Amino acid sequence: MPATPLLFVGLGPIGRSTLGCALARRGLKVVAACDADPALAGKRLSELVSGAPKSVRVAPSVAALGKLPKGTVAIVCTSSTLSSAAPTFRALLAKGCHVVSSCEELVYPALRQPRLAKELDLLARKKKVALLGTGVNPGFVLDLLPAVATAPCLVVQAVRAHRVVDAATRRGPLQRKVGAGRSVAEFTAEAAAGRLGHVGLPESAQLLCHALGFGKPQLDETLKPVVASAPIETPFVRVEAGQVAGIDHHLLATAPRGTVELHLQMYVGAPTPRDSITIEGEPAVKLVLEGGTPGDLATVAALLNAAPAMGACAPGLRTVFDGPFPLCRAFA
Amino acid sequence: MPATPLLFVGLGPIGRSTLGCALARRGLKVVAACDADPALAGKRLSELVSGAPKSVRVAPSVAALGKLPKGTVAIVCTSSTLSSAAPTFRALLAKGCHVVSSCEELVYPALRQPRLAKELDLLARKKKVALLGTGVNPGFVLDLLPAVATAPCLVVQAVRAHRVVDAATRRGPLQRKVGAGRSVAEFTAEAAAGRLGHVGLPESAQLLCHALGFGKPQLDETLKPVVASAPIETPFVRVEAGQVAGIDHHLLATAPRGTVELHLQMYVGAPTPRDSITIEGEPAVKLVLEGGTPGDLATVAALLNAAPAMGACAPGLRTVFDGPFPLCRAFA
Repeated sequence: MPATPLLFVGLGPIGRSTLGCALARRGLKVVAACDADPALAGKRLSELVSGAPKSVRVAPSVAALGKLPKGTVAIVCTSSTLSSAAPTFRALLAKGCHVVSSCEELVYPALRQPRLAKELDLLARKKKVALLGTGVNPGFVLDLLPAVATAPCLVVQAVRAHRVVDAATRRGPLQRKVGAGRSVAEFTAEAAAGRLGHVGLPESAQLLCHALGFGKPQLDETLKPVVASAPIETPFVRVEAGQVAGIDHHLLATAPRGTVELHLQMYVGAPTPRDSITIEGEPAVKLVLEGGTPGDLATVAALLNAAPAMGACAPGLRTVFDGPFPLCRAFA
Repeated sequence: MPATPLLFVGLGPIGRSTLGCALARRGLKVVAACDADPALAGKRLSELVSGAPKSVRVAPSVAALGKLPKGTVAIVCTSSTLSSAAPTFRALLAKGCHVVSSCEELVYPALRQPRLAKELDLLARKKKVALLGTGVNPGFVLDLLPAVATAPCLVVQAVRAHRVVDAATRRGPLQRKVGAGRSVAEFTAEAAAGRLGHVGLPESAQLLCHALGFGKPQLDETLKPVVASAPIETPFVRVEAGQVAGIDHHLLATAPRGTVELHLQMYVGAPTPRDSITIEGEPAVKLVLEGGTPGDLATVAALLNAAPAMGACAPGLRTVFDGPFPLCRAFA
C-alpha cells in the first residue's frame, strides 16, 4: 500500500510531537508543513523536528503551499476553537485535502457553530474529502470509550464518566490552563472570562447523546477550583497551600431519553489518576482505565491512528463514530 | 424510520431470550421464526415466548418460510460451529436476508473454514446482504474491546486479556460445558474429544491480529481443569473437593508483528469475576471491567445492537470491526 502523504498545519508542541512520531511510523510520509508564525516560515522542517525531511520547508500559510499529492491528509494542531481554526479548514478542504485535527470543538462542531459545521460539511462533500476532529479528551476517554462500553447492554439509562488527571505530569501550558498557582479570586475572574478550564466536555456529552440516540441534551456545566491544602511544586509552577491546584469541571447533560454526566478533575498533585466509566443500564457496566490515559501522547496517537483511515471515510464532516474503527495499527 | 424486520432462526435458550428482549425494544419487528425441532414446528410464537406475535408460527426450516419483508435480518442462534450452521446461513443469504449470528466460529470464519468463508462472502455480496458473527466472547470482551483500548496508543507490542467468570452464576448447560462436577480423568478424556471447553479463543486472537495488523499468528492453545479445593453446589450441579469446577483456557498467538495472549477462567465459585485487558505499548493501557461482562445477557444485547445496523454494512461477510460502530441505542 502506498504511504499516506501528510501535511502538518501548526507546529506548536502537539504538532511537532505528532510530526516526530509520524516519522517513526511505517505507512506515513511527511510531504509538507505550514505555520503562521513568521519566525518559522522558510525554515527546513529538519531544523524543527529531528529526522524530518530536509527538503520540506515551512510555508507561512495553506495558500502558500505548492501542489500536494492526491490523498494528502492535513493534520491540524492550531486551536481549540472552531471559529479560529475554520479559515484553515476551509482552505485545506478547498485544496482537496482530508483534514484530521485536535481542535476540540471540531469533535462535535454543530454544538457551538451549527452554520459553520454545515458549511464545512458541504465543502468537504463537494471536494470528496473528509474532515474529523479527534483526540483523547474529547475524542476517546469521555465519549468513544463510554459508547463502546454500551455494546454489551440491552438498555442504557445513563453514562457517567470521571477522569482524574495529575496535572503535575503534564506540560507547563496545561498547568497554567488549569490555573495552578493562582489565587481563588484570580481563578474565578479568569474562569468567568473563559480563559481557564478545559474545552470539550460539552462536545463529548453531545457526541455521546447523539451516538446513543438520547436526543438533544440540556447542558449544565460548572467549573470550580481545586484548592491545595499543602504546598506543591512542579518543574513549571509552585502552588502554595490555599492557592489553586487545578480544576474540578462537571457537566450534566439531560436528554429526553438518557443522561450523560462527565466529571473532569485535573490538578497538580491529584492522587491515583484514572478514568472510570459507569453505564447505568441492563447489564450495568463498570470500566476503569487504571492510571488514566496520558493526554498529550494519546492525542498524538489518536491523530496518527486516524490519518491513514481518512481516505476510507465517506466524504463530509465526520465524527469518531463514523469512520473506520479507531485503533492502533503500528508495531515496534 | 421503519422498524427492522427480524426472523429468528433457532429457538433454544439464547434464541428465545433474544426474541423476548427484541419485543421490548423500539425499532424492531418480529416477522418470522423457524426451528428444526419437530416439537416446535407449527406452534404459535406466543406459546414459546410471552408477548410474541400470535400470528407468527414456527416454521420447520428456512426453506419452509414464506416471503419475507425487504431488509429482513435473520438472528441465528443454532450452533457454535460453522460447519453445522453453514447450510442455514446459505439458505438465508440465498433468500436475501442479512444474517447476524451468535455462532462463535462465524466471528472469524476464515480461521477454520477458509473455503466456506469465501463461499459465504461471495454469496452475500451477490445477494447484496451482510453476514456477521458477534456476541460477547467472542465478539466483544477479548477482541473488540482490547482493539478499542489501543486507540490512544502510538505503538502496540502485545495485547493480553484475562476473563474470569463465576460459572455458578450462569446457565446449567454452561456449567456442564466447563466440566463442573466431573472427575479430572473424565475432564481430560472429554476435553481431548473436543466435547468440553469454550469455542472462540482462537477466533478472538485471529480477529485481533488481523485488526491490529500483527499478521498471521501461530496459535498455542491449552485447556486445563480447575479443581475444587472444597465442595460447592449450584442449582444445577454439585462439585466435591477434588472434582473439576471448570476450565482454565489459555491461548498464545504469536504473530510476526505482535503477540496476543488470551486467558479464560470459567469455573463454579471463581472469586471476583472481571475482565482485564493490558496493552503493552506506548503508552501502556490497563483496562478493567469490574464484575466482568455477563455472558448470556451481553450476547443477546450484541445480537440486538447489531441487527438494525446490518443494512448499513457493505455486502459480504463482515467482522465486528467492519460494520457501524457497535453500541447500544436502546433506552428505558
